[in-house]
Amino acid sequence: MPHEITPKLFFKQRVMTPGPVEVPPDVLLEMAQPIIHHRTKQFQAIFKELCDKLAWLFGTTGPVLSIAGSGTTAFESAQTSLILPGSKALTIAGGKFGERWQDVYEAHGVEQIKINVPWGRAVSPAEVGDALKKNPGVSVVTMCHSETSTATAADVKAIASIVSKTDALLLVDGITSVGAMPVKMDEWGIDCLVTGSQKAMMLPPGLGYVGLGKRALDRLNNTKPKGLYNLDLRRWLKSHAKNDVPFTPPVSLIRGQVVALKMLETQGLETVWGRTAKLAAATRTGFEAMGLKLASQSPSDSVTGAFYPEGVNDKTFRGAVRDQFGIHIAGGQDGRGDKWEGKVFRVSHMGYVDAGDTLAALCAIETQLIASGHKTTPGTAADAAAKVLLT
Amino acid sequence: MPHEITPKLFFKQRVMTPGPVEVPPDVLLEMAQPIIHHRTKQFQAIFKELCDKLAWLFGTTGPVLSIAGSGTTAFESAQTSLILPGSKALTIAGGKFGERWQDVYEAHGVEQIKINVPWGRAVSPAEVGDALKKNPGVSVVTMCHSETSTATAADVKAIASIVSKTDALLLVDGITSVGAMPVKMDEWGIDCLVTGSQKAMMLPPGLGYVGLGKRALDRLNNTKPKGLYNLDLRRWLKSHAKNDVPFTPPVSLIRGQVVALKMLETQGLETVWGRTAKLAAATRTGFEAMGLKLASQSPSDSVTGAFYPEGVNDKTFRGAVRDQFGIHIAGGQDGRGDKWEGKVFRVSHMGYVDAGDTLAALCAIETQLIASGHKTTPGTAADAAAKVLLT
Repeated sequence: MPHEITPKLFFKQRVMTPGPVEVPPDVLLEMAQPIIHHRTKQFQAIFKELCDKLAWLFGTTGPVLSIAGSGTTAFESAQTSLILPGSKALTIAGGKFGERWQDVYEAHGVEQIKINVPWGRAVSPAEVGDALKKNPGVSVVTMCHSETSTATAADVKAIASIVSKTDALLLVDGITSVGAMPVKMDEWGIDCLVTGSQKAMMLPPGLGYVGLGKRALDRLNNTKPKGLYNLDLRRWLKSHAKNDVPFTPPVSLIRGQVVALKMLETQGLETVWGRTAKLAAATRTGFEAMGLKLASQSPSDSVTGAFYPEGVNDKTFRGAVRDQFGIHIAGGQDGRGDKWEGKVFRVSHMGYVDAGDTLAALCAIETQLIASGHKTTPGTAADAAAKVLLT
Repeated sequence: MPHEITPKLFFKQRVMTPGPVEVPPDVLLEMAQPIIHHRTKQFQAIFKELCDKLAWLFGTTGPVLSIAGSGTTAFESAQTSLILPGSKALTIAGGKFGERWQDVYEAHGVEQIKINVPWGRAVSPAEVGDALKKNPGVSVVTMCHSETSTATAADVKAIASIVSKTDALLLVDGITSVGAMPVKMDEWGIDCLVTGSQKAMMLPPGLGYVGLGKRALDRLNNTKPKGLYNLDLRRWLKSHAKNDVPFTPPVSLIRGQVVALKMLETQGLETVWGRTAKLAAATRTGFEAMGLKLASQSPSDSVTGAFYPEGVNDKTFRGAVRDQFGIHIAGGQDGRGDKWEGKVFRVSHMGYVDAGDTLAALCAIETQLIASGHKTTPGTAADAAAKVLLT
């Protein structure tokens, strides 16, 4: 049972994986309300509120569509709906999720110019600019803002300013950035921004969100779908204009999302971004104080990854951190070339997580690293992190 | 607010539309449990239980996949994953949903032999047999077991016995039949059976289920996907073999579904089917006693539809039934040819609904029909229905 206090060391359960993340009690209770029908004024009012709050969160005057499914469903719908028939996609990857978007275009037979940077490094804006110059006929550029598998953040703002000067649309995977880190869709010139419900949006999995800027809307209005039904964003847009969705929506999740977004609104985005950044900075400091090497050279603020010291077994380590301290953290992931499973572990800073949870995680990780033979003085991580958190 | 008692006539709110339907309190509370991560033994145990119970419900020894999204997502994945490249689909429609599956194949450029029967009539097994004889090269037959838009049930058992003797696979939309009416996947020879969470499964919307028989599995193992990623059932099957899903699943819905399925298990499927049939029979009897004409010549037991008497305005009528009596019922739907919006109304018998709810609905409908000028003696519908229910 999660969230009971484990008998051994008096720790509660804390889900600190980079998705799903903890869902605030008020959101859980809202979702436990009796079902309502989706073709009612009551639901339409809730849905309208969701759309308005999503637009605020994304920083866009364009529509933000709510699509039933995983973040992958939402991103695939954007990829396949926005690519021009016969054109090429410039696809940037430096981790498992960037590679997934390459796999999606591969499955759909879309020709790609691939930029694959080493895992843990972010693509540079210059690399993107050069690739666009060298390769005419690119109609979509895909990238991850925060690559969850390597805990790496890319400079979307700078890249958007380059892509927006071309005919290509910039499609950004903001699945672990929206609601955690500054992302300003219209101001930065992002044409399409996608996120999922189970990250900084503080909801269970089951919904993906797709924000569409002016250039993306023009593209959709002027191209014909090919081999798409459910994933065809034109279908969703048409319903959206009537404050509706084309297929029965996950009404409970939508109700919960409105409550979660109200919480973000009350706190203020700058506060939320600031807190997330602080928790991340404290975690990085704590990890480095223990002598760990960070997974990323360009760390994201929504998730922190570190390489295991020599001799620590991933499964045993994370199992103990979970079973003895109640802290659920994630391991590494394997990609096409790079294999990070067993080599890194990752801790999330998204959503309903605070300084106390972060200190608890650092303490558990440190204690278990020492038990696994790593040399560090007990208290080092918490002490270093506390200095960051409390100043 | 739903489910408060309306001040005017002391009625609670009752969602009796053919999806979403009421979710039992125990299921709502289960979904309100704190989030758990999906890559854990705890979740795997829950997921295994879900898969086992789904197989029991579907009546199959094959896998039943749980796909995030709407029922449409699940059905499109089955349609596109199972069709042989270059082959034809025989698509049967007699309502909005049958037509939707034709639209899906249209969007994917699949050649179709269409059987379009008049709305309210079920296709006959002979029509299907003839079409298959006349049209070689059909690799998939699609049909609705219960066509929700017209409240019509088709004889899937007889049709399956015909299709199973050919090389074509039978793909059945059981979205408003599974859990409400007898459907026996393996025994009847259905190759692929699809349902959604928000109907007789007693869950909020957000999950679709795809059951695969032996012939469907063989087909999947021997064909290559084309233009599919998320919707490619091969990807889901590969994960399923490891008791997993390829993309972050809606963990809360999955937990809730296990509890809802336990309820069906405790009651027994025969009991659930019998109750649903009884509620439907009582409703039909009540409608006919008031002089209404049923929407279907071959009525489904999961939903009952009736034509409005002359002069009753759909929106005003359903608005009053909802606002004054708390009963949420559905209107008609428009198709490509037939336009039933404004002409019929529909009441669901699926899931967490009892004799009391059904009598309340009949009483409200009768009272409001009389207020709209329809001539019938007050008490007629409830009296006729009660005789069916209590004998």
